[in-house]
Amino acid sequence: MSDKPNKPQKLKARLPRGLADRGPAEIAATRHMVEAIRAVFERYGFEPVETPAIEYTDALGKFLPDQDRPNEGVFSFQDDDEQWLSLRYDLTAPLARYVAENYQNLALPYRSYRYGYVYRNEKPGPGRYRQFMQFDADTVGSASLAADAEMCMLAADTMEALGIERGQYAVMVSSRKVLDAVLDAIGLSADDAPKRLTVLRAIDKLDRLGKDGVRLLLGKGRKDESGDFTKGADLTTEQINSLLSYLQPEWPISEFHQARKQLAEERGEKPIKLSDGNVYYPWSSVATIRVMRKQFSNEKYQDALSEIEQVVSLTEQSGYGFNEIRFNSSVVRGLEYYTGPVYEVELTFEIKDEKGRPVRFGSVGGGGRYDGLVSRFMGQPVPATGFSIGVSRLQAALTALVKVGAKREAGPVLVTVFGAENVQASQKLTADLRSAGVRAELYLGNPKHGIGQQLKYADRRGSPCAVIQGPDEKAKGEVLIRDLIAGSAPSDLKDRDEYLKKQAEAQFAVKESELVEAVRKLLARHKL
Amino acid sequence: MSDKPNKPQKLKARLPRGLADRGPAEIAATRHMVEAIRAVFERYGFEPVETPAIEYTDALGKFLPDQDRPNEGVFSFQDDDEQWLSLRYDLTAPLARYVAENYQNLALPYRSYRYGYVYRNEKPGPGRYRQFMQFDADTVGSASLAADAEMCMLAADTMEALGIERGQYAVMVSSRKVLDAVLDAIGLSADDAPKRLTVLRAIDKLDRLGKDGVRLLLGKGRKDESGDFTKGADLTTEQINSLLSYLQPEWPISEFHQARKQLAEERGEKPIKLSDGNVYYPWSSVATIRVMRKQFSNEKYQDALSEIEQVVSLTEQSGYGFNEIRFNSSVVRGLEYYTGPVYEVELTFEIKDEKGRPVRFGSVGGGGRYDGLVSRFMGQPVPATGFSIGVSRLQAALTALVKVGAKREAGPVLVTVFGAENVQASQKLTADLRSAGVRAELYLGNPKHGIGQQLKYADRRGSPCAVIQGPDEKAKGEVLIRDLIAGSAPSDLKDRDEYLKKQAEAQFAVKESELVEAVRKLLARHKL
Repeated sequence: MSDKPNKPQKLKARLPRGLADRGPAEIAATRHMVEAIRAVFERYGFEPVETPAIEYTDALGKFLPDQDRPNEGVFSFQDDDEQWLSLRYDLTAPLARYVAENYQNLALPYRSYRYGYVYRNEKPGPGRYRQFMQFDADTVGSASLAADAEMCMLAADTMEALGIERGQYAVMVSSRKVLDAVLDAIGLSADDAPKRLTVLRAIDKLDRLGKDGVRLLLGKGRKDESGDFTKGADLTTEQINSLLSYLQPEWPISEFHQARKQLAEERGEKPIKLSDGNVYYPWSSVATIRVMRKQFSNEKYQDALSEIEQVVSLTEQSGYGFNEIRFNSSVVRGLEYYTGPVYEVELTFEIKDEKGRPVRFGSVGGGGRYDGLVSRFMGQPVPATGFSIGVSRLQAALTALVKVGAKREAGPVLVTVFGAENVQASQKLTADLRSAGVRAELYLGNPKHGIGQQLKYADRRGSPCAVIQGPDEKAKGEVLIRDLIAGSAPSDLKDRDEYLKKQAEAQFAVKESELVEAVRKLLARHKL
Repeated sequence: MSDKPNKPQKLKARLPRGLADRGPAEIAATRHMVEAIRAVFERYGFEPVETPAIEYTDALGKFLPDQDRPNEGVFSFQDDDEQWLSLRYDLTAPLARYVAENYQNLALPYRSYRYGYVYRNEKPGPGRYRQFMQFDADTVGSASLAADAEMCMLAADTMEALGIERGQYAVMVSSRKVLDAVLDAIGLSADDAPKRLTVLRAIDKLDRLGKDGVRLLLGKGRKDESGDFTKGADLTTEQINSLLSYLQPEWPISEFHQARKQLAEERGEKPIKLSDGNVYYPWSSVATIRVMRKQFSNEKYQDALSEIEQVVSLTEQSGYGFNEIRFNSSVVRGLEYYTGPVYEVELTFEIKDEKGRPVRFGSVGGGGRYDGLVSRFMGQPVPATGFSIGVSRLQAALTALVKVGAKREAGPVLVTVFGAENVQASQKLTADLRSAGVRAELYLGNPKHGIGQQLKYADRRGSPCAVIQGPDEKAKGEVLIRDLIAGSAPSDLKDRDEYLKKQAEAQFAVKESELVEAVRKLLARHKL
């Protein structure tokens, strides 16, 4: 449109919005991450499975009432038999399809992992992409809460395998059922799904808006800094107070200590003695849950808490403390298909943004029990629970932590070319190096380029050394090797003789037959 | 449609046509292949780059004249700003877009590799999928034929890195220009593009139909076994003879020997002495080309042969013989964008199909020079050449050769459960094993399942051993370890005592604190 009409049409090279190209450092970092995650998932006994990027739209759980095109949020297109296909938007829905299709041939419980790109047809924003990588583990066919506990431990172990230390992450556990029970308890009708959804969305913002912001959203509504007004859930003040006292309980601290002490006695735990003579027990979520039982009395609430208590008991008894895995009453998890325990992994450390303001990464993964997802296809109940890591999101966090992808890897050895007539000889030298396993490349720019231009290219490529064979060297059956790392070392050596010695050492001649050995020695000297 | 009308609607779990799920053995095989290919590509100095699966349709080189939807062959959908997007159908077009978009920041020549899934909206068939993996290398910004020679050597080295031995593969080289020149020489109008295309398609079938079949397709046409008639290119008999004599030259063998001897003298090569006193030179494509120069005299033909001669000279001088990389006059390569040398990698061994008939795998990769593809975006010439491996296709061939993915990997150690009340203790044992790096899983089926049922599950999972802690063991602070490999060993031992001894050894008790050590020893005994 903005092109001038008389300009010859030239195709514009551009990426569609919300998509990104990735370079060597980023690719290497992803590879290392994927390998680290894979090792942990394998250790837990999960086995790999892979499904394609394209599924029938209905199998993904999106439906086509009377619209021309399927719901927003997914990329969809029609097959030539008019059936709607979509790019997968997560790895859980395709797994449910896979399990249902292969149910008879799977050893149940079926424990599998998979990773790959997923696609969201959403408005892109900073750090929000329309293609990103997830890494999932799922256990299908087990109703045991031990399966859920295992997902939490898997999440914790994975974070540590990625170099995120204890204290820098937390796996938060709750249950979809417990919030349901709380909403029942404060007198919200189970049939008023829209109102319940507004309430859940408000709770989900507790981290960001704090208690006061959420209070507004639970009541009449909230005006944000920009002046935009979000309509609230219109709860009564009593309902709001009751709900907030569940989210941030205000029981006296002595109640918690009492519960903890009692638990320690039951378990036969020994307290830890402090240097001032006092004793203490490392905090336990089980104690929290016991106190919170007093909050509401309805059976659903009590049952839901029992479920969470079982999960955190199992993780605590397996050696995962409150810092690693803990009950958090405000975990909601967006997806509608969860039916039981839900978990969320948060990074708890802060980094500074470019303006020096603290930024928290927040959630980098999560999951939960989804007993209904496979059943959709089966006509019989199939319990399942799973955990998903947002690899792309986590990678951004790890890059900030400088755990991955900080160092540029060394480039290949560059074999230079003295004019077109010598390409053959240089090609041979390159082949010799490669046969010996040395990463090497022939200069493939214009063979008339001078050695200066070729060395400049070597520098941009990060080459550790260049191999040079001019007519003089060729006549003597020799090659020059130029050490580009030593040669580019800072020239602030005090001693002039030493400086010249360094420079001389940076370029030296060897017999053609000794090329491979000499290059190997040079690489070893630079620890490459 | 075929569902009975009164049946409650149940979602059917099914994969769309032409797509496949992949299990552990296949995934592991792909991983090993990708790692092997990556190592070779890296050794050649290529660096990784990754582009997303979605591109603007016009950037992929598909155009939208006045149709509602883009050309067939690609999966396409409209973005919310009405621009057409497509899933990539190869890795070359996206690279061209990437290079054009980042031209100023790349060190030229830009040598990169990438791999990933590509998508074809085509009619699926046996072995033909709509999602499959490619692995590509490209050099952009080099007009040097050394870049093309390098692609051929890269192809050869990659085959060998994958365990395909010399003699089992061949890299065939030709040039898009040479066939053009031959068609000029036999008097086919350069403007008659449709006729030229028909001729090229006929040539492409030489391997399958032989000389006589191609003769028909070049003439009036050919009726196949099923009775279907394919219209021919309608060349004159003279034109056909001339073309076929290029494709299968009938020069006397002495001419070739003469050319080879002369080449050897120029190169100063020593002949190889045979035991019967005769001497011979390993065959050289350069000699073939020299003889074939006599076939046509037009300048374009001579230039095209010089181009190919340069490529094979470079590869021969770098140690790649006729068996590895050779000139083959009938290589066509389907894609329209090639402008110079083209190469194709064929597997030359045969396997038998289920009916015992010999099957050749044929092409598993190829590439060529495409000087126009990046230029489309740039308004300036940008020479480029590349090579692409069909990973999925090659994996099928390697599986047949039993080079990959034959052996099932061992499953995890299974920790059994004695009733729901013991889940916690068993979970702890599992966590201990995992902490020590042992692949282990807790039985997550119904905890009421008997030990027999749990061991059956272990068997299906391929577990090397099971860990059992019943009430008796627990009281003694012990666990039982059951060796499932030794335990399932054939019971044809002659000596009854030895048999009983083996059986006794297959299950033994250890102290709970010695569990990890005992399991490690067991795994080591079975070399796991």
